Amino acid sequence: MSMIVNEDIKVVDCTVRDGGLINKWKFSDGMVEAVYSSLLKSGVDYMEIGYRASEKLFDPKEYGVWRFSKEEKIRNVAGRKPDSMKLGVMVDIGRVETEDFLPKEESFVDFVRVATYLKDIAKAVEIANIVGELGYEPFINIMAISTVNEHDLAKGLEQIERDTNVTAVTVVDSYGALYPDDVKYLVELFRRVLKKKRTGFHGHNNQQLGFANTIQALQSGATFCDATVNGIGRGAGNCPMELLLAWLKNPKYNMEPILQVIQDHFVRLGKEEIEWGYIIPYMITGILNEHPRTAIALRDSERKDHYADFYRQLTTPECFK
Amino acid sequence: MSMIVNEDIKVVDCTVRDGGLINKWKFSDGMVEAVYSSLLKSGVDYMEIGYRASEKLFDPKEYGVWRFSKEEKIRNVAGRKPDSMKLGVMVDIGRVETEDFLPKEESFVDFVRVATYLKDIAKAVEIANIVGELGYEPFINIMAISTVNEHDLAKGLEQIERDTNVTAVTVVDSYGALYPDDVKYLVELFRRVLKKKRTGFHGHNNQQLGFANTIQALQSGATFCDATVNGIGRGAGNCPMELLLAWLKNPKYNMEPILQVIQDHFVRLGKEEIEWGYIIPYMITGILNEHPRTAIALRDSERKDHYADFYRQLTTPECFK
Repeated sequence: MSMIVNEDIKVVDCTVRDGGLINKWKFSDGMVEAVYSSLLKSGVDYMEIGYRASEKLFDPKEYGVWRFSKEEKIRNVAGRKPDSMKLGVMVDIGRVETEDFLPKEESFVDFVRVATYLKDIAKAVEIANIVGELGYEPFINIMAISTVNEHDLAKGLEQIERDTNVTAVTVVDSYGALYPDDVKYLVELFRRVLKKKRTGFHGHNNQQLGFANTIQALQSGATFCDATVNGIGRGAGNCPMELLLAWLKNPKYNMEPILQVIQDHFVRLGKEEIEWGYIIPYMITGILNEHPRTAIALRDSERKDHYADFYRQLTTPECFK
Repeated sequence: MSMIVNEDIKVVDCTVRDGGLINKWKFSDGMVEAVYSSLLKSGVDYMEIGYRASEKLFDPKEYGVWRFSKEEKIRNVAGRKPDSMKLGVMVDIGRVETEDFLPKEESFVDFVRVATYLKDIAKAVEIANIVGELGYEPFINIMAISTVNEHDLAKGLEQIERDTNVTAVTVVDSYGALYPDDVKYLVELFRRVLKKKRTGFHGHNNQQLGFANTIQALQSGATFCDATVNGIGRGAGNCPMELLLAWLKNPKYNMEPILQVIQDHFVRLGKEEIEWGYIIPYMITGILNEHPRTAIALRDSERKDHYADFYRQLTTPECFK
C-alpha cells in the first residue's frame, strides 16, 4: 500500500478544461475560483484552466469563458501569479490563432498544451514551436491513441523529438479503451523514441481504469499525469485527482483541499447540473474503442438507460438494423 | 486491447450475496430470477446466490431470503439444476450449522465458500472439510487481507494446503485498500504456498480499482475471479461483471445478457432503493485501510456529503477531536 516517492512526477489538473466539455465551460466563477485555490493548497504542479480559442471561431454567447480562457479571466481567478503552480491552457489544431497569445512576460499563462490527432502532428509541431517562441512551455497531447497504428505513431514521435522543444508528449486514451497492458506498451514506446522529452498520460474512465492506467503509466516511465477533481470530465470522466494524490505518497501533495472542494461544489454539480462517471453507455463505447458521441446522444434522449439495446445497435452490422 | 484467452479462468458471480449486504438481502424474486437467468446466458461459471445461515442466529423477519438461501428458494429460482453454471452459497464462521446442509445429491447447491478472517483459519478449515465431506466443492475466502502480516498469512495458507481439499483460496480485499502492486505480491505469495489449490481474487471498488486489481490478479496467476452485475456490493461495490467478461475475451462469455439485466433491474435499484459505487467516504476508508462501517454510517446521516469533515474526523488523533 505504498510506493517510493518519485520526485520527477508532475501532476497536471484539467478539471475545468476537461469538465467543461460536458457543459460548454459554463461553470460559475465561484466554482472555478474554488478549484483553483484547492489545487494551489493541494500542491498540484500544473493547472490547465481551460481551452484557449479564438472568438472568431466560437460564439461567446454559446460557450462559457473557459472555452477562451482570456488573460483577464485567468487574472481574475488567480489574483496574483502563483509561485508553486504553473497555469496553462490547451489549444486545438485549427481553433487558435497566434494573436490569441500575449508574449509570455505579460501573461499569467506558463504553459500551452497542443491537443492533436496523430494525422495532424505536423500542425501540432508548428503551433508548439510558435507558443514556445513566445516563451510558453509547450506540450503536445496525442488524442485517440487507441486508434493509431504503431508505425505511424513512431514516425510522429520522431518528428516531435527532432523538431520541437516540448517538455512532454502525452498519451491520451480519449475513448477509455486501453487496458493497463496497452498503457505499458505505449508508454514504453514513447520512452524509446522520446529521448529528450518526457511522457505524460491522460486516462478516461469508461472501463473504471482511468486511475489504474495512470498508475501503470507512471510505473512504466511516464512522469506527467493528468487528473481532474472527482474525476469530472466528458462521458465517463477522468482519473480522479483525490485518488492520484493519495497514491503518490509525496508529502508535497495534500488530498484534503480536494475533498473540501468536492464537498463544497462537486456534490451539487453531479446531482443537479451535469453527469459524468461510470455509466454503461460510456463503458460500451470504451470497449468498442469508439468516440463517446453516440453514448452522449443516448444519455440526452428518452432511451438513456436502454443499455442492452444501445449495445446491440452499435454491434449489429448496418444491413441487419 | 486484447489478451490471450486463458481457459483455466473461472468467473464467480456474487451479485445477490454481496449486493445483499446493502439491503439485508431484500431483493425481489423477479430481480434474483433475472440475475440468475442473465448469468446462465452469459456463460458465467459459478453463481454464489446468497449466504447460508441458521435461522436460529438471524431473524427471518429482519433479513431477506438470501441471508439463508434455503434449498427450496434456490429451486424456485433455478427451476431445474443448471448444467453449465455451478450454484453455491457463502457461509460465515460461527453463523452456520452442519444441519443447515443437505447431502449434496439432494441439493441444487454445488459449492460452498467459507468466508473467514485469517485468525479463524482453523475454524474455516473445519467447516470446509465438513461441507467437503457432504459432497460440496469447498472454497475458502480470506477477508480483510490488507490488514494481515505475511508471516501469519503464509502459515494460514500452509494449513489450508495441508489440511483441506478446497478448490481455491480467495484473496479478499474487503476494504478496497489494495493497489495493483499489492495484489501481484499477494497472489504470488498464495501461488508459492498453495501448490495443490487455485487462487481467487475478490476486489472492492473504493479506489476505482476493483476491475484493475482483478486483471492484475489474473495476470499474476489467480484463476478464480469474483464479480457482480453492475459492480453492486456494499459500499463502493465490486468488480463489475460486464467489464470483466468483455476483458476476458473468451468466446464462451457473453456480456449482452448482463447489460440487459442492468437495463431491466439495476438502473431502478440504483436510483430508488440502494446505493453503491465510487463515493468519496468509501474512497476515504479504502485509502485508510479501514472497514467501511464509518462511511456507511455517514451515508445514512444528514452529513452524508461532508467528505472533508469525515476525512479530518478519521485522521485526527482522538485527543485533538
